[in-house]
Amino acid sequence: MNALTSGILSRLHASRGYLSGESLCREFGITRSAVWKHIGRLRDAGCRIEAVTGSGYRLEALSGTPTAEEVSLFLETRDAGSVFHYHKQAESTNLLARNLAAEGAPEGTVIVAETQSAGRGRLGRLWVSPAGANLYFSLILRPKVPSFRIPQITLLAAASIRRALLDACPAVVAGIKWPNDILSGGRKLCGVLCEMQSDTDRAHFVVAGIGINVNQEVFSGELQGKATSLRLETGSSVCRSVLLAGVLKRFEELYLQWLQADDLGFIRPELERHSVLLGQRVVVERFSQQLEGIATGIAPAGELLLLAADGNELKIGSGEASLSNTYH
Amino acid sequence: MNALTSGILSRLHASRGYLSGESLCREFGITRSAVWKHIGRLRDAGCRIEAVTGSGYRLEALSGTPTAEEVSLFLETRDAGSVFHYHKQAESTNLLARNLAAEGAPEGTVIVAETQSAGRGRLGRLWVSPAGANLYFSLILRPKVPSFRIPQITLLAAASIRRALLDACPAVVAGIKWPNDILSGGRKLCGVLCEMQSDTDRAHFVVAGIGINVNQEVFSGELQGKATSLRLETGSSVCRSVLLAGVLKRFEELYLQWLQADDLGFIRPELERHSVLLGQRVVVERFSQQLEGIATGIAPAGELLLLAADGNELKIGSGEASLSNTYH
Repeated sequence: MNALTSGILSRLHASRGYLSGESLCREFGITRSAVWKHIGRLRDAGCRIEAVTGSGYRLEALSGTPTAEEVSLFLETRDAGSVFHYHKQAESTNLLARNLAAEGAPEGTVIVAETQSAGRGRLGRLWVSPAGANLYFSLILRPKVPSFRIPQITLLAAASIRRALLDACPAVVAGIKWPNDILSGGRKLCGVLCEMQSDTDRAHFVVAGIGINVNQEVFSGELQGKATSLRLETGSSVCRSVLLAGVLKRFEELYLQWLQADDLGFIRPELERHSVLLGQRVVVERFSQQLEGIATGIAPAGELLLLAADGNELKIGSGEASLSNTYH
Repeated sequence: MNALTSGILSRLHASRGYLSGESLCREFGITRSAVWKHIGRLRDAGCRIEAVTGSGYRLEALSGTPTAEEVSLFLETRDAGSVFHYHKQAESTNLLARNLAAEGAPEGTVIVAETQSAGRGRLGRLWVSPAGANLYFSLILRPKVPSFRIPQITLLAAASIRRALLDACPAVVAGIKWPNDILSGGRKLCGVLCEMQSDTDRAHFVVAGIGINVNQEVFSGELQGKATSLRLETGSSVCRSVLLAGVLKRFEELYLQWLQADDLGFIRPELERHSVLLGQRVVVERFSQQLEGIATGIAPAGELLLLAADGNELKIGSGEASLSNTYH
């Protein structure tokens, strides 16, 4: 989409009612047939635009596609999303983001893909990424904090996405599964994969990769019964461009606080209140080790606290948590 | 150097005495003039080879240049150096190594450069890298350990380089300046810069970059009085290809033990005995913070232990340490 098409979209979105072709001609200094051409492009991109003789054009619905132009209509951040790359198709947005970051892309750069051929979750697992329904994006960060604090960004992202999901769908019940997933009714709604390049002292850059199941209606194969979407949980579609702008806003709010803080203590109550693990019997796998206990809290530095059967309190920095099926 | 040239070098090195041109012709199935051509190439590469009519060829001295062919003569490792890239000139071997690792280069891959145009030390500082005298190389690792253990590799490398320096120059007095330098007489002999790409759970890869001042005789500018070399400390030149093979051997020994261990506890006595900080008043800078105290030890996980003036023991994971000039 070029700047003129984007400008016309912005005007249509701001006006809410009808906007005459003549006023668009005047404002952008173009002919009526040029206006018509740009309207055609917006329709091709998926926007529903009504044209009524004598009244003009009215934006009935956005495309929902999280392009730079559409997302920018809703962006309320300082840095996050100020550089924005939209791809119809990508291997993985985290891979693109790592490459851009290595070349010097600034903090706040966002890479979105409509679909990913090799989207990844934690531990190298595939993140199934069909087109047209969901959000897959990565955010480049350059936090000036000691590298041992970087893993906290995963929980920070989870908390901010949960806030943004509730902004968009106040009815959705969403809980955080430590350290990187958001669940609804026990099914996965969203996942976060943070990656970094660092030396012993500091992170060179961090890439926060986020996948949110937004409007997908069917999950088949091994995802059946394990994944869900906002649409399935609430019965209505959510505009992806609005949601993406909302996540960026909520993330930036928390991120700026976190940079000034020592740890995650400032959102610890929220992380604990909305944890799906707390009070449950949990097994955490890390490498070949299995740790088991009752989840009792989230430590200020982001570790999961487990009360083991022998009465010891375990403080777990990373791992794959699941609710235990064994009862003793 | 091609495989035949390399094979002839290997035979000359193994024979120690004279090797007739005829025996080389037979062994490699080539003509006398072809043998002569390969000898010429070895001489061009810097090897000193004597040719005596009636006796044959004798290797008087290696080039010392740490090429794949020369280093392989001395390599006694399983993985380290089994894939080996030698560059006459590189921006930085860590940068090359990161790119190769991202493309899937196996554990043990070594990248050597004769000179670096943008060699880097910690905190983004330049590592001055003139040609023909020193060692600049990077080793790719893929340790299957939790990512919080990765910073320990810096000290592990420092300990193994110290061992290899003593193998090559038993008279040198070398101490470890936590966490990543080796000093002799208070001057820098060697630096380590470990970098990694990771997610919250595990490192995708680690690049251990190592610079050793071997035969450099003059340090000017701001390095004057701050840097030294094996040559300056011992009065004699050291063969760089032998030293590099030695570092790889010593490193692999310790690395394989470390993979099986929980931490650096198994070399803690060595790390403490040869620390240049222990018992000294030390200031550690990390980000904008300054921590000061008497260095009392190295913790099993690699942290520096400082006894602060208020009697508290500080455990410092990373930072830039220096001996304090203030006496109170």
